[in-house]
Amino acid sequence: MTNRTDIDDIRKAAHALADAARVVTLRYFRHPLEIETKRADFDPVTVADREAEAAMRAVLSRMRPDDGILGEEGEAVLGTSGLTWVLDPIDGTRGFISGTPTWGVLIAVQDEDGPFYGIIDQPFTGERFEGDPSGARWIRAGETRPLQVSMTATLARATILSTFPEVGTRAEGAAFARVARDCRLTRYGMDCYAYALLAAGHVDLVIEAQLQPYDIAAPIAVIQAAGGIVTDWRDGPAHHGGQVIAAATPALHAAALERLNG
Amino acid sequence: MTNRTDIDDIRKAAHALADAARVVTLRYFRHPLEIETKRADFDPVTVADREAEAAMRAVLSRMRPDDGILGEEGEAVLGTSGLTWVLDPIDGTRGFISGTPTWGVLIAVQDEDGPFYGIIDQPFTGERFEGDPSGARWIRAGETRPLQVSMTATLARATILSTFPEVGTRAEGAAFARVARDCRLTRYGMDCYAYALLAAGHVDLVIEAQLQPYDIAAPIAVIQAAGGIVTDWRDGPAHHGGQVIAAATPALHAAALERLNG
Repeated sequence: MTNRTDIDDIRKAAHALADAARVVTLRYFRHPLEIETKRADFDPVTVADREAEAAMRAVLSRMRPDDGILGEEGEAVLGTSGLTWVLDPIDGTRGFISGTPTWGVLIAVQDEDGPFYGIIDQPFTGERFEGDPSGARWIRAGETRPLQVSMTATLARATILSTFPEVGTRAEGAAFARVARDCRLTRYGMDCYAYALLAAGHVDLVIEAQLQPYDIAAPIAVIQAAGGIVTDWRDGPAHHGGQVIAAATPALHAAALERLNG
Repeated sequence: MTNRTDIDDIRKAAHALADAARVVTLRYFRHPLEIETKRADFDPVTVADREAEAAMRAVLSRMRPDDGILGEEGEAVLGTSGLTWVLDPIDGTRGFISGTPTWGVLIAVQDEDGPFYGIIDQPFTGERFEGDPSGARWIRAGETRPLQVSMTATLARATILSTFPEVGTRAEGAAFARVARDCRLTRYGMDCYAYALLAAGHVDLVIEAQLQPYDIAAPIAVIQAAGGIVTDWRDGPAHHGGQVIAAATPALHAAALERLNG
């Protein structure tokens, strides 16, 4: 595991990455975009996406030359330090091109055990959600507040978020519905901002499917540091992507898993 | 119709209302709330809702004592001027209690022909979307930009937003699905922010059902001032609420109406 000095260095670099990505993404957000790919499943890759990742890689090559990089856009870099930066320059590209402030820049650092440091950055609202082994915090315009998940322990009192019904197979959608129908409130369309809201205690459950590793690495680090739980739908590690459940408390996590697999 | 001087007076009052509501709502947003009603359909009425409307009514009684008031929370006030302020202190209370920056303060002024002035205010992002007979504008932190709907004319190129699948009867949901399946992209969960994004040209269609008059008065004024169209699903006036469609262009509006009623 990384020690205190390492974490301070990592934090410094991570904030520099997020700052660099913020400049690029805000230059393109809500301005006309060339949406390059128009495949049937509509997964737009924008110029902003590529430029933001390039900006982050440039910072890493200067500040953390020995670390590996796993990014959505560019080629994987094998490092020598045992640490890998996992980058998603714009998570929620559909939200991005729709003008909604729900997309984010995801930055995580992982070792062989998975992600232990993460940032979910929302450039338009100016919010940065950060988690590391010492805790989790919300940073905006110079203000910092601790992040703490809710104490919600039952589905009946839970607010659940997902990108469903847009994402997932029919079976995955049905599994999600089994959980959602017992929840107090179901909301959609929040992209990675959903995980930030969970870390901050505003919502209690996030369930998604068909994620990539770079979609979930930073949320795992932020939510775990805020006291929450992130696993796959079989209660295994979530950092490989796929089917993911994030919950505020162990009891809520168990109740949701039971219905997902029921 | 109101003349230029009237509009200037109305604008002054409306911004004072929005400023007053902003202070109240931000005091409660993302802080623990007493959710008073826990009815089966989950329509929370919060302290913030009531206090924000009271703050706006206090401003009106001082600045516009002759106008009527139709608000979500308080009793209707019959004015003598022929003008009525239509107020929704927190549109999107579900978004509000989930911590999402998609709720808004809705302020409109209408005469016998319907709303001709409106503000959609999002206190957390600090955005104010305003429409009046002279045009529509986006205001944030002292910066002002004109609002203009998109030129999107076909469903195949349209992004559609709705609170569905949460809201609406089964038949309304099916009608929405007939439109959405031909659209390029469908997004949910944006509350009244959806209408603001339409006015700003970021999305092209918003379709909802079971609205109250105070849910739609301000969006009508803002979107029409930005060049868009708002009607009910039968192409009639929308300011009575119910089933509402907002579109960027006449061609898109016609194509969506055809499927809604198909």
